Amino acid sequence: MNNQMSDLLRIPTFEDVKAASLRISGAAHRTPVLTSRTADQRTGATLSFKAENLQRAGAFKFRGAFNAIAGLDSASQRSVVAYSSGNHAQAVAYAANLQGVGATIVMPKDAPEVKVAATRGYGADVVFYDRYTEDREAISRRLAAERGAALIPPYDHPDVIAGQGTAALELIEEVGEIDVLVVPLGGGGLLAGSALSARALSPNCTVIGVEPEAGNDGQQSLRKGEIVRIPVPKSIADGALVTHVGQHNFPILQRCVDDIVTVTDAQLVETMRFFAERMKILVEPTGCLAAAAVLSGTIASAGKRVGVLLSGGNIDLEKFNSLLRGG
Amino acid sequence: MNNQMSDLLRIPTFEDVKAASLRISGAAHRTPVLTSRTADQRTGATLSFKAENLQRAGAFKFRGAFNAIAGLDSASQRSVVAYSSGNHAQAVAYAANLQGVGATIVMPKDAPEVKVAATRGYGADVVFYDRYTEDREAISRRLAAERGAALIPPYDHPDVIAGQGTAALELIEEVGEIDVLVVPLGGGGLLAGSALSARALSPNCTVIGVEPEAGNDGQQSLRKGEIVRIPVPKSIADGALVTHVGQHNFPILQRCVDDIVTVTDAQLVETMRFFAERMKILVEPTGCLAAAAVLSGTIASAGKRVGVLLSGGNIDLEKFNSLLRGG
Repeated sequence: MNNQMSDLLRIPTFEDVKAASLRISGAAHRTPVLTSRTADQRTGATLSFKAENLQRAGAFKFRGAFNAIAGLDSASQRSVVAYSSGNHAQAVAYAANLQGVGATIVMPKDAPEVKVAATRGYGADVVFYDRYTEDREAISRRLAAERGAALIPPYDHPDVIAGQGTAALELIEEVGEIDVLVVPLGGGGLLAGSALSARALSPNCTVIGVEPEAGNDGQQSLRKGEIVRIPVPKSIADGALVTHVGQHNFPILQRCVDDIVTVTDAQLVETMRFFAERMKILVEPTGCLAAAAVLSGTIASAGKRVGVLLSGGNIDLEKFNSLLRGG
Repeated sequence: MNNQMSDLLRIPTFEDVKAASLRISGAAHRTPVLTSRTADQRTGATLSFKAENLQRAGAFKFRGAFNAIAGLDSASQRSVVAYSSGNHAQAVAYAANLQGVGATIVMPKDAPEVKVAATRGYGADVVFYDRYTEDREAISRRLAAERGAALIPPYDHPDVIAGQGTAALELIEEVGEIDVLVVPLGGGGLLAGSALSARALSPNCTVIGVEPEAGNDGQQSLRKGEIVRIPVPKSIADGALVTHVGQHNFPILQRCVDDIVTVTDAQLVETMRFFAERMKILVEPTGCLAAAAVLSGTIASAGKRVGVLLSGGNIDLEKFNSLLRGG
């Protein structure tokens, strides 16, 4: 039975998150936990923001990527393939570079030049595809087979999930038990990993995932009890535009997540503004999902200790300004 | 001899910084120390950025204000007066509020409405003056006398200096000894306090202050061996537009600071852009002084462990964008 086959069945546990925490120690930043009197006053809660926008490569994705690469069989697999136009690609390229592993990143040929340059800057080989006519997953699988490389998927992988869980682990280690943990949800890597940490370290904590309103496949899936697929959603939360959560992720969401709620793009923009004006940090739209649900009151938090994951900060300044101007 | 008289002669020491550190503990944020592979690669140095832009009220000023107010004779002085159109006013208002002390803030009558509202939001009484015809220091002294309140000056005060020194203390505690410490310089509160910490905790460390090119009174003073006064300088570093360093500050600068260098407004803008794009944080122009000197190569740092203080993040987004667009 090869690695990929067994991975299909291997659902990670909190033990895997703890192991990931050791593996990434010294490589990933232990990001700060930020607080805001204004946010606390507005909600009546005690909010602790885990600032993964300050993570290496600008997002939590570095944790899962580094852990998955560190978990490769070093005798046979010295290179990796990943597909993504966003944070996962950069994270894999960067984490591979740090571990002396070759990386091939499959990117759309119309990807922003700055992202291509950044990915190459981490030493990765960039392979382009046409996002309108070609299937990036098929291309990636073919490249992985040709090159004897391991495919590192963005969320549907036990080591990726375990790595993403280290952010919530650090948060709870730092602030102690919490009443509610709120986490952005795309494919479910961060939410599943976070839920494992919350269940283990703060057992009475309610765990809530937050999706863009336009892409509530996770909410539908949790309610229906099976993975629901939707068409590619439209939202400014470009890191959460998935059509379905992962197979490794869903069982954990079913077991450990209490609810999934949604926020609008307008609420995301207001939250981006809040972070920039009041907390002096740049958070990308996807990174604002959890915070938007809390600050807008979608999640009732008064009187509670609430952990909020800010998942990333990768947005260019022009786009940032255009969103804040309502463009 | 009253408090103010004795303060004129009391030059703080590192013992005062340590005492301040205890006083502000739990009130001030222990701000994170951030790193950037890109910045390290660009300079060849190992850079540690102390992110005081993430401090309460958005700047290091909270440390000195809180410490000075905590040091008041609680029997007789239950209110304070401060003058400032910038970070010091907010910091005093906020720190006073937290300690149950009344605050009167003297602000120019054309101060931005948002700053007036924020100051009042901290519970302070705002008194306006006309910046073209009135002397804010005289008004503040009169108000302090009338109200039996203590005047908290922005930098020329031993408890303010000692409080500001806690940022560098935390930085060196966290990263260990460093080779160079680089600090923004306006009136010398942060630089004097930082120098006390560096001399005590990292004795072989070179301490360098950084001023805006247009306002190099500190550099002139250090070279001449006496406090040099200049006309009000023009720079985007609006927190460093002082005409002279403080009397309590200068002896410390003479004894503990190795050099003072300057940077241009264009270098400050480039540094603001770097922090936003690469490190996902907003740093105001004054807050970029030290980093600009390092990132521009004005201070040679290759092969060295360099501590860099980012002093504040209070700039509104419109102004931020206008500066980055070259406006």
